[in-house]
Amino acid sequence: MLSTMNDGPLSIARIMRQGTGPHGATAEVVTWTGAEPRRSRYAEVGREAARLAHALRGLGVTGDQRVGTFMWNNAEHLTAYLAVPSMGAVLHTLNIRLFPEQLVYVANHAEDHVVLVDHTLLPLFAKLLPEMKTVRHAVVVGGDASALEAPPGVEVHGYADLLAGRPEEFDWPELDERSAAAMCYTSGTTANPKGVVYSHRSIYLHSMQVCMTDGMALEQGDRGLAVVPMFHAMSWGLPYAAFMVGASMIMPDRFLQPEPLVAMMAAERPTMAAAVPTIWQGVLAELEEEPRDISSLREVVIGGSACPPAMMRTFQEDYGITVVHAWGMTETSPLGSLARPPAGVTGEDEWAYRVSQGRLPASVEARLVDDDGRILQWDGQSVGELEVRGPWVAEAYYGDDDPEKFHDGWLRTGDVGYLTPEGFLHLTDRAKDVIKSGGEWISSVELENQVMAHPAVAEAMVIGVPDEKWSERPLVAVVLREGETADAAELREFLSGSVARWQLPEYWTFITEAPKTSVGKFDKKRLRKQHSEGDLEIIHLT
Amino acid sequence: MLSTMNDGPLSIARIMRQGTGPHGATAEVVTWTGAEPRRSRYAEVGREAARLAHALRGLGVTGDQRVGTFMWNNAEHLTAYLAVPSMGAVLHTLNIRLFPEQLVYVANHAEDHVVLVDHTLLPLFAKLLPEMKTVRHAVVVGGDASALEAPPGVEVHGYADLLAGRPEEFDWPELDERSAAAMCYTSGTTANPKGVVYSHRSIYLHSMQVCMTDGMALEQGDRGLAVVPMFHAMSWGLPYAAFMVGASMIMPDRFLQPEPLVAMMAAERPTMAAAVPTIWQGVLAELEEEPRDISSLREVVIGGSACPPAMMRTFQEDYGITVVHAWGMTETSPLGSLARPPAGVTGEDEWAYRVSQGRLPASVEARLVDDDGRILQWDGQSVGELEVRGPWVAEAYYGDDDPEKFHDGWLRTGDVGYLTPEGFLHLTDRAKDVIKSGGEWISSVELENQVMAHPAVAEAMVIGVPDEKWSERPLVAVVLREGETADAAELREFLSGSVARWQLPEYWTFITEAPKTSVGKFDKKRLRKQHSEGDLEIIHLT
Repeated sequence: MLSTMNDGPLSIARIMRQGTGPHGATAEVVTWTGAEPRRSRYAEVGREAARLAHALRGLGVTGDQRVGTFMWNNAEHLTAYLAVPSMGAVLHTLNIRLFPEQLVYVANHAEDHVVLVDHTLLPLFAKLLPEMKTVRHAVVVGGDASALEAPPGVEVHGYADLLAGRPEEFDWPELDERSAAAMCYTSGTTANPKGVVYSHRSIYLHSMQVCMTDGMALEQGDRGLAVVPMFHAMSWGLPYAAFMVGASMIMPDRFLQPEPLVAMMAAERPTMAAAVPTIWQGVLAELEEEPRDISSLREVVIGGSACPPAMMRTFQEDYGITVVHAWGMTETSPLGSLARPPAGVTGEDEWAYRVSQGRLPASVEARLVDDDGRILQWDGQSVGELEVRGPWVAEAYYGDDDPEKFHDGWLRTGDVGYLTPEGFLHLTDRAKDVIKSGGEWISSVELENQVMAHPAVAEAMVIGVPDEKWSERPLVAVVLREGETADAAELREFLSGSVARWQLPEYWTFITEAPKTSVGKFDKKRLRKQHSEGDLEIIHLT
Repeated sequence: MLSTMNDGPLSIARIMRQGTGPHGATAEVVTWTGAEPRRSRYAEVGREAARLAHALRGLGVTGDQRVGTFMWNNAEHLTAYLAVPSMGAVLHTLNIRLFPEQLVYVANHAEDHVVLVDHTLLPLFAKLLPEMKTVRHAVVVGGDASALEAPPGVEVHGYADLLAGRPEEFDWPELDERSAAAMCYTSGTTANPKGVVYSHRSIYLHSMQVCMTDGMALEQGDRGLAVVPMFHAMSWGLPYAAFMVGASMIMPDRFLQPEPLVAMMAAERPTMAAAVPTIWQGVLAELEEEPRDISSLREVVIGGSACPPAMMRTFQEDYGITVVHAWGMTETSPLGSLARPPAGVTGEDEWAYRVSQGRLPASVEARLVDDDGRILQWDGQSVGELEVRGPWVAEAYYGDDDPEKFHDGWLRTGDVGYLTPEGFLHLTDRAKDVIKSGGEWISSVELENQVMAHPAVAEAMVIGVPDEKWSERPLVAVVLREGETADAAELREFLSGSVARWQLPEYWTFITEAPKTSVGKFDKKRLRKQHSEGDLEIIHLT
């Protein structure tokens, strides 16, 4: 029996029409320029998107060719978000923070035909452009285009010149909703970056979720501050969702330091904002130094990595702002889960929910899998690797088989944790860091936290090391606070109060500094290398 | 370029799993029984749905066979909402208020194989069953199944007996999201009822919209009171949306009179509710007579027909409850538009938005078309017929060509009005009632309201009558208040203060009673017949 419902496609053009039409005269994009803002109403953004689409057609962009962006969060980047997918091409947001060789790799792998680049990023981009083999046109946004030297076979254009005089309307084509709309590469630490290709359908559904009550509940009249870069997982869905319901967007451009961010917040009155914990840490420190009025904020969404509970409490107690802790990945568009406590829960009970990674919405199926591929119960105890599946979850990488990551439509997230019967996700470790001891899993992160609770310990890193009997056992690498002393036996004795007996580590080492990655996380790969090369002095307690 | 996103189907099974899993222990369905409620947690509803699916398989339901329901709003009807589509069959909600011959027609047209019937509806159903040619099984919910006599070829079962001992889990199949999930017939006044067939996809997307901030903003912890029958356009989307986000459902069963409704509201503390204006009129009258605490209500959604502005104000000013005026049809699932004023608008400005039919969300495309098929501007003035299109809008009727109603994927709504630049819909008339005078459209409803503003007038009906020069001109049929007098010239003079000169009617008639339909609306078809048969005494002012 056939359904009688309309089968028209879910598309970014539909989102754009809603934002530029009914909301075109009221919603605006605000771009910070240091001391003051630039403003455009969404109706104007729509006209600009049409001009950009005509300009890109003029540069020979047809079919599903890739148009790269090498840009901060600003009005022009938002314009590209709308124009490029709606004309049928594919928006490739280049992550300006990748290593140069990774940037060259992804531009070549995606076969970018055109790249839009902010003039403030030219010093970085100019070094990469000669290596980007498929790029034929570089479009410089703002500033002086002639500052960019064109390598052989590449034309350089000024954005404003290129768009000048183009028609303000474009005949947006009807597209298959499953066709590619945008792509974003994840920054792997070991291998080459992997490309995730979002479809019109996945972006449309994800935008609806952002505006749902169990999503970010973004609404008409909201002023959303996207600190999260537009080159990170589609800026957590804010730009498209904002056009879908008529929320304004506040864009910090390159002014991501705490001082200008706080100044912008005080001036532009965002009602919600999204960023990683590190950014918020800086914002809170800045506010402590020089108080400013940020009371316009109703909620801040914090994700990207686990948010320290103390930071959530500071927001709530000192500023009356609710933190919504969220979990997601580039591969999940990124909205995977959000911590909204059940209705009616208050006080400390509420905090137990708020610090979790939250609930997964109906569209994100989840399961926990153990080492033997068994599906575990949602009992608040059984720890396994989280796998997810759904209409905005990737089931492959672009042109890159990775069977370790995907199977039967499920994405192996690489995150380890448990789920409560109510569906709240608690992540405890990364799969590659968890210690597999005699068939049981020990969370390296939890052990680290317990060791660091000792007053003499500045930092503690835990990795799994081979063990004949148990296959793996934890090794604790300790950095002592200056002037403090503690030996391994004393620390193990300290742990025995809070850690199960069979988890108590017998391998210890004392180091002067914890190896860290460029973004300041513990570099366990490096510690493992030091261990395997015999560079660590191991104390074996028996 | 292929998207790398998962292509799994949007399905009612997914909605059911979210409601019965993470929300299974907290959300509940409450069914009123007159003095007290019956309660089931969603986890139990899920187990019951599995039992029902097994039972229906046992009755030979396979593939996309139709399972009819002849039921009030209650837990068992909700169970059928989940089980029938999720097992791959098609739920056909029979509108118990259709005329008997229409009910027989729709059951035969849909080829219902099984019908679930509430025992309290047996007196009505027993007369229809022998005429329902494809029905092989009638399942009586509650009461004594033997009260229903089985016609030849039909087996009668008791619901509880049929489900007893069945497994509490069912292996719900993976279905194409575009396959039929449910059907609902519209009650045409002239021709046979027409069937709309909802798909898993359309219901899933519509459920998301119900939980969006520009929808009903239904959320976890809400207690949704569905006064709107479950046999009307899927109960305005509430049941499925409630399972999607974990809102509880409060079901009035057959207790739809003001007194029990108010008693149930006071006892069960709904946070939102949905019903037609007539129901709310009764509720307000009942509350005036005997005040009760209904302060749990945050919002009431009113649709089905235009809500009198005075009623909205009473809710807001006397009870602190916000009315969300909404427009939709069976053919639009039904969520078409909702009146949520733009952020920051207050006072009388806010009311101007609240009394409109509201904004259409991104997924419901709209356009206004005039008699010559020209697309009109959204200028707050140009009046035309509203056409809509989108993933939860029908583009055909089941097994029934109706090219007058659909073209190029667009649904002709039969509603006439204008759209503002901000996208707010103002309906002024039904297309068949609008008077087409010299190429301009005159709203019959607006003329009626203006005439009824005269103190001597009890009721006024306006229809178009043939006119040689203008093609059509308005005829006003007036019912005077008892003891009052007024003649046509005086009434026309009265109108001249508020109605454009060219719209002033020259044809008048005085009648003793306005012909009305079974649901109390003006029966203009009957008035037109009286006019064409010369039964009305016409006064022609020149």
